[in-house]
Amino acid sequence: MRKVAILGIGQTKVDEQWDKSLREIGGEAAFLAMQDAGVDKVDALYVGNMLSSMVSGQNQLGTFFSDWIGLWKQEAVKIEAACGSGGAAFRSGLMAVASGEVESALVVGVEKMTDKAGRDVTSALATAADSDYEVEQGVSFVGINALIMRRYMHEFGWKHEDFAPFSINAHANAMHNPYARLHEKVSVDKFERSAMIATPINLLDASPVGDGAAAAIIVPADKVLRQPKIVVAASAAATDTISVHSRKDPLFLNASYLSSRQAYTMAGVTQDDIDVFELHDAFSIMAALSLEATGFAERGQGVRLGLENQIGIQGKIPVCTRGGLKARGHPVGATGMYQIVEVAQQLRHECGTTQVDGATIGMAQNIGGSGATILTHILRREN
Amino acid sequence: MRKVAILGIGQTKVDEQWDKSLREIGGEAAFLAMQDAGVDKVDALYVGNMLSSMVSGQNQLGTFFSDWIGLWKQEAVKIEAACGSGGAAFRSGLMAVASGEVESALVVGVEKMTDKAGRDVTSALATAADSDYEVEQGVSFVGINALIMRRYMHEFGWKHEDFAPFSINAHANAMHNPYARLHEKVSVDKFERSAMIATPINLLDASPVGDGAAAAIIVPADKVLRQPKIVVAASAAATDTISVHSRKDPLFLNASYLSSRQAYTMAGVTQDDIDVFELHDAFSIMAALSLEATGFAERGQGVRLGLENQIGIQGKIPVCTRGGLKARGHPVGATGMYQIVEVAQQLRHECGTTQVDGATIGMAQNIGGSGATILTHILRREN
Repeated sequence: MRKVAILGIGQTKVDEQWDKSLREIGGEAAFLAMQDAGVDKVDALYVGNMLSSMVSGQNQLGTFFSDWIGLWKQEAVKIEAACGSGGAAFRSGLMAVASGEVESALVVGVEKMTDKAGRDVTSALATAADSDYEVEQGVSFVGINALIMRRYMHEFGWKHEDFAPFSINAHANAMHNPYARLHEKVSVDKFERSAMIATPINLLDASPVGDGAAAAIIVPADKVLRQPKIVVAASAAATDTISVHSRKDPLFLNASYLSSRQAYTMAGVTQDDIDVFELHDAFSIMAALSLEATGFAERGQGVRLGLENQIGIQGKIPVCTRGGLKARGHPVGATGMYQIVEVAQQLRHECGTTQVDGATIGMAQNIGGSGATILTHILRREN
Repeated sequence: MRKVAILGIGQTKVDEQWDKSLREIGGEAAFLAMQDAGVDKVDALYVGNMLSSMVSGQNQLGTFFSDWIGLWKQEAVKIEAACGSGGAAFRSGLMAVASGEVESALVVGVEKMTDKAGRDVTSALATAADSDYEVEQGVSFVGINALIMRRYMHEFGWKHEDFAPFSINAHANAMHNPYARLHEKVSVDKFERSAMIATPINLLDASPVGDGAAAAIIVPADKVLRQPKIVVAASAAATDTISVHSRKDPLFLNASYLSSRQAYTMAGVTQDDIDVFELHDAFSIMAALSLEATGFAERGQGVRLGLENQIGIQGKIPVCTRGGLKARGHPVGATGMYQIVEVAQQLRHECGTTQVDGATIGMAQNIGGSGATILTHILRREN
């Protein structure tokens, strides 16, 4: 398959956007990406979204947006993989362009969550878990992650405050990202005193939902004149059991392991070559498990990277450089595309205070469910 | 891209399956397709579904089914394009295999609709239309089609009974399909006397919903030893505005026109070469409009093909040879895959009483919304 590159990117602020509809939010990111790419049409549209049918009464988002954006006649489709929808849509767009089936693709990750009460959104988010064997037993999505975190603390001997660096780092980086939902410094003390949600997960362990959209235009790499060129070096997807209780080891993200190893091979790199890693920190425990499965830390030692100050902009492996899910916010089906856009910003060297010096290779990993569907993408800056 | 073929097919009966869950219905079709193909694993899974989050509280259907089927670790994703979800998932699977990204794909179209009251399903189906500009005005999905049918009758001077042949043909063919939901003969008199739903659409103009799943295994054509070989000769997708009122001409399915012409070119055929056409007769008016847009009839003359007995098994263009949406049933997100499976059955010459003699080239056209997203596939029998 031919090499592809990202020609343009766009994003909206993650926020409670009561005055904007699903249509307007997704359209805004799409138009910004097209403007950034300098194009006014594309061959096909891939939309990543999880909740629109339940929150906005709207399905068929591919055509819904191709119509709104003015891409009449063009192919358009929606891809859903729970919170991994954005990354999965990106992979669909990539495959369409890389295979030669289309010459350009617009990928939009979009989520509108504030049209419903919080309780309804919690129910809607639970559709990512197993309806028969998890949700019907009364467990919420945060509840599942709380069980994993508690077991991890028990198994490896960590205290709750050991997770604080993930939250502190994400919030510190988000201070410099105008698109981030939260602009608020976090300290260990503040982290420990924040409201409990599902023991041991408290408010500052958890990412806030929100409305938002992020988009990218994908074209064959040899069509890109713009410098630097942001090339897609690898795309890989893997899955695990949908229920956490079905796994031999609930503390290892096997689909993260599989998809990252496949991506490293495809890109011809190892984890040591990755300059920036936008990981899926829906909860702080997920940040730790992601660092372990992708090879940056030994089993049970992911939190150590935070405690040793290795996840900051100057660290061994900078993560959540634009705020991550924790502070940029987690508009679920859009998140995977925010990660792609943010890695592209880093590789373009457009991140100001939170720029990773000389960033050349960046990785984005998007997770659907509790480690059930995992998409790993590696982007590379080429001059 | 390399040539691909269908190695195996499977389907469940379309019915009210109160005793089977979403998981069991989709799994059954998947296992049957794998058994038919003689394989016990595939590289990737593509699931077409529209309603599972609203009806069964279950999202992330890709991984939900890869887990259930035992395809642990493999890539899996869900594609949604309203009632066009099945065809869109088939196209995703095709692209993955044709591009060389994977060596085999399982595509499953699945829908579970009877876990909710009819009223709730009507609301869920309305998410295919434009939430802001159609549904909020009080129009249901059948209501939109009724407006189109009424205008068509006014514009071209047809009476309601002129549409009877579509229903009669579909029901007659379904009598010989054990997987069809309805096994009931229809006459012109019965058609005219059936209960009104939304004037002028009555019960026998409309397809019944239901639970069901249909699946296919796709592999590179040169890997298929089985005879005859069912090759995918063309795959094309096009869209229109999501709202019917936004179209210059609400009586012409432009996305059907565009995708069928692209498919004819790709396959190197004209409409005269098509031996079997599984069209999307969600309502009888859609059968007429589909025949016109794909080139089998002049504008406003689609019904004439029925009246002149040209749509039956012995006719010029046999449609709905296994019962169509009208009588086989319309489990919305699964329908596109039923069409693919049925065309494959015709090309394998496995249809008994409703076999089209010497069928070599078959077309399936799947529609999402009221003509908004349209997928056209052409299959060819090769010995």
